[in-house]
Amino acid sequence: MNAESIKLDGRKIRAQKTYDDAHKKLIESAVELLNNPLISHEKITISQIARHAGVSAATAYNHFPENKLDIYGSIFNLGFKDVAEELNEFLKSSPQPDKVIIKFLDTIANKVVELGNAIRIAWFEVREIQASGKWIEGEPYDVLYSLCSNYDPAIADELADEIFQMFNGATFLWLRYDSNYPVWSKYTDDWYIEKVNQIFDKATKIHK
Amino acid sequence: MNAESIKLDGRKIRAQKTYDDAHKKLIESAVELLNNPLISHEKITISQIARHAGVSAATAYNHFPENKLDIYGSIFNLGFKDVAEELNEFLKSSPQPDKVIIKFLDTIANKVVELGNAIRIAWFEVREIQASGKWIEGEPYDVLYSLCSNYDPAIADELADEIFQMFNGATFLWLRYDSNYPVWSKYTDDWYIEKVNQIFDKATKIHK
Repeated sequence: MNAESIKLDGRKIRAQKTYDDAHKKLIESAVELLNNPLISHEKITISQIARHAGVSAATAYNHFPENKLDIYGSIFNLGFKDVAEELNEFLKSSPQPDKVIIKFLDTIANKVVELGNAIRIAWFEVREIQASGKWIEGEPYDVLYSLCSNYDPAIADELADEIFQMFNGATFLWLRYDSNYPVWSKYTDDWYIEKVNQIFDKATKIHK
Repeated sequence: MNAESIKLDGRKIRAQKTYDDAHKKLIESAVELLNNPLISHEKITISQIARHAGVSAATAYNHFPENKLDIYGSIFNLGFKDVAEELNEFLKSSPQPDKVIIKFLDTIANKVVELGNAIRIAWFEVREIQASGKWIEGEPYDVLYSLCSNYDPAIADELADEIFQMFNGATFLWLRYDSNYPVWSKYTDDWYIEKVNQIFDKATKIHK
């Protein structure tokens, strides 16, 4: 590798870093606006997200050419990237395979709660996000399946399916939280985290 | 009661029947249009639903003053009414309490599959439907809870919660069916019915 290509690579890496930083800022801005109870989420514009992030509108349109779908897709992607990083950090202590599964689910649930209403709104657009090809790269189910294989390859399929169904059940109920209904006011953040933490035990009770 | 009031009641009952018949026709029309793969659901109008149902547009606007939310809310309500009727029919044979729970879940799952894409689209608007007060009258969870009380009052709470979470998990995955993704193409109608039929056994394995 000669000096010229090193210089070019350095420039490319810096450009990528600038892009990633702006992207993160824009998504954080969008998450904040989507969590503001005074703003109706249908009315949030790309310009508003840009202004709130201190980024030019032109840059924002460049990041989100397909508008809301790009934003919602990025909320999922960045959220899952954080989860993966936290899991990798946890793996350094060589934990037992069952503990890794429990940690993985708990980390997702906490990230979901942290993103709050932003992820709630995004999740209700999940079919459009999937259809547009902007769903999470490195599908969470695949990660779960590989963690279940590490735990017990003989039942990895059933276990991963069971956990995924239970996790989606808890998540769907949390998504539907509504303080105006006796049934739906139950599904608070605390309820969600608690239920997600019980999933592994329940799934192993069923598949043994 | 004199002749006059009987006549008035008769008129009232006929008017209600006319209203209900038109409502049913309109909802059936909406379900058909929402299941037509050639029509984008965002573009379906009340007039189109009326025309397809052979009902005047004025009548349709009268039935759906708040547009799509009324339609989606009615799809849930009429669907659940059918489920309740089928369950009541089943109860006439005095089945065992566990069989009633299994039948209830299976009837809902089959109704969901029958309504197909219409219920999929409606379910992704569930938060708006709930917020507008148009969610199902006679909340399905309450029915489930009372069936679980008949089965075993000592564990009715845990059992109903577990079943509800699993049922919502299977439903959410079915809702997210997408033929373009290896993970999401798994959640077919057959998968859904099968999973729903396993729920009671699994839930009783966890709570005994």
